[in-house]
Amino acid sequence: MTRDQLFEQIRKKHSFLCVGLDTEADRLPEHLNHGEYPLFEFNRQIIDATHSLAIAYKPNVAFYECAGTPGWKQLELTVAYIRDRYPDILVIADAKRGDIGNTTRKYAETFFRHMSCDAVTVAPYMGSDSVLPFLEYPGKWVILLALTSNQGADDFQLLHINRGQRLFEIILEKSSSWGSPDNMMYVVGATRASMLVKVREIIPDHFLLIPGIGAQGGDLREVADYGLNSRCGLIVNSSRAIIYADSTKRFAEAARARAGEVQREMEGILRDKGLGTISSVF
Amino acid sequence: MTRDQLFEQIRKKHSFLCVGLDTEADRLPEHLNHGEYPLFEFNRQIIDATHSLAIAYKPNVAFYECAGTPGWKQLELTVAYIRDRYPDILVIADAKRGDIGNTTRKYAETFFRHMSCDAVTVAPYMGSDSVLPFLEYPGKWVILLALTSNQGADDFQLLHINRGQRLFEIILEKSSSWGSPDNMMYVVGATRASMLVKVREIIPDHFLLIPGIGAQGGDLREVADYGLNSRCGLIVNSSRAIIYADSTKRFAEAARARAGEVQREMEGILRDKGLGTISSVF
Repeated sequence: MTRDQLFEQIRKKHSFLCVGLDTEADRLPEHLNHGEYPLFEFNRQIIDATHSLAIAYKPNVAFYECAGTPGWKQLELTVAYIRDRYPDILVIADAKRGDIGNTTRKYAETFFRHMSCDAVTVAPYMGSDSVLPFLEYPGKWVILLALTSNQGADDFQLLHINRGQRLFEIILEKSSSWGSPDNMMYVVGATRASMLVKVREIIPDHFLLIPGIGAQGGDLREVADYGLNSRCGLIVNSSRAIIYADSTKRFAEAARARAGEVQREMEGILRDKGLGTISSVF
Repeated sequence: MTRDQLFEQIRKKHSFLCVGLDTEADRLPEHLNHGEYPLFEFNRQIIDATHSLAIAYKPNVAFYECAGTPGWKQLELTVAYIRDRYPDILVIADAKRGDIGNTTRKYAETFFRHMSCDAVTVAPYMGSDSVLPFLEYPGKWVILLALTSNQGADDFQLLHINRGQRLFEIILEKSSSWGSPDNMMYVVGATRASMLVKVREIIPDHFLLIPGIGAQGGDLREVADYGLNSRCGLIVNSSRAIIYADSTKRFAEAARARAGEVQREMEGILRDKGLGTISSVF
């Protein structure tokens, strides 16, 4: 998926919402626990209920691996379902992979060729050969961890390096030369919206994937104030707050209602920033 | 597996060799390509041929994911086979995971509970909550990336931080307080043996997992000179040089021969360092 196609979707849906599919076997509504593929069935209903409000889905690979071979199968089914039914939607494998070149090539095959995901999250610690093999796939994206939303982010990401820059800034600066805003995005935690100013100084044009809205407590308006660029440039994720909005048979309807609330807030933001109509941006 | 049990194996086998199971569908000997589980069948024969020479096996998860659901199944079969037949051998899931706490708990369930691996490799970028949930499993190990053997390692791992230390040193120092030498090890690239001096200043007691012997070009004797401690403290990995020593029906025999060469070199080193006999170490 190209950057233009992504922006086209944002304009069409008045949304920059990503729904995180952190689907756990023990949080499924009771009535789904009897089929062969309960995780997939849950996802399918969530996807059917929210696809007009979201521009991306982000299955968290850990939650599928944790269910063993049947879990991996249901991850594949979920990605294939989105690909088949809603081909315009960005599918992000939230895998946070990062390894030497020959291993990275395997991960790229896994997520891009075998599963047809559009994007994969990648950890930067092992440097360029953790990233470059992914970029050999046209139309696919690396979403590199820059500044995460968890407590442990403080341990290393904010360390000051010799020239006064912090580690995440060095990573943004260096890694942005490996690709371009057309094939790389960055993860920037929403609980640190003020740091988005610094991020936007270094990478004004890249899309940012913002986790941490909802269960992790980020503020959408603040994120938009500091993170939006002229082509939106933001994908904001919400996982648990949407997919677990209700634990009964009405879970998908409740997820749609919750996603709708977020989408309407996003629509207002896009309008306020002059990104709300087609004529204002082209 | 405890540190004592690991050392016991080293003494018994006169070896600190880990065989990396980077098993690729398109590098299998022709005659294995017809069964239902060719990756597993290859691994099974490699394991049967080398188990008396190796103290650890390290399946690289990427190579199994890349084969989709059947690949994941064969990873599970491989781990279960080692667990069942050779329970004294350390099984390392080379997965390089790293995520927020609730996701890390899923990865820990996957590799420690579902698959019964002894250890998992973890990336440090997201900090303490990427590591701590793994340490809640008694007898299990986190092997944290410190200094890797690939070209991209230079991009960030060697950055100088304010007090003059490099990033990998800060990571060693900080993370070593999260666990102990009884539940944490570190990845240190063998192609940088001289840096082992610095590593040993910071963590004298931890086991180090050294990749890069063989295909990546590290030198075993140099690694031992700088990395050994009084309880060995090294696990040296070789993957491709052993498992792909031959591509015919004699592949397992050839792998055993190659593993034997490495083991004999290790035996000599252990003897030279006074770690070769039981009486010398207790």
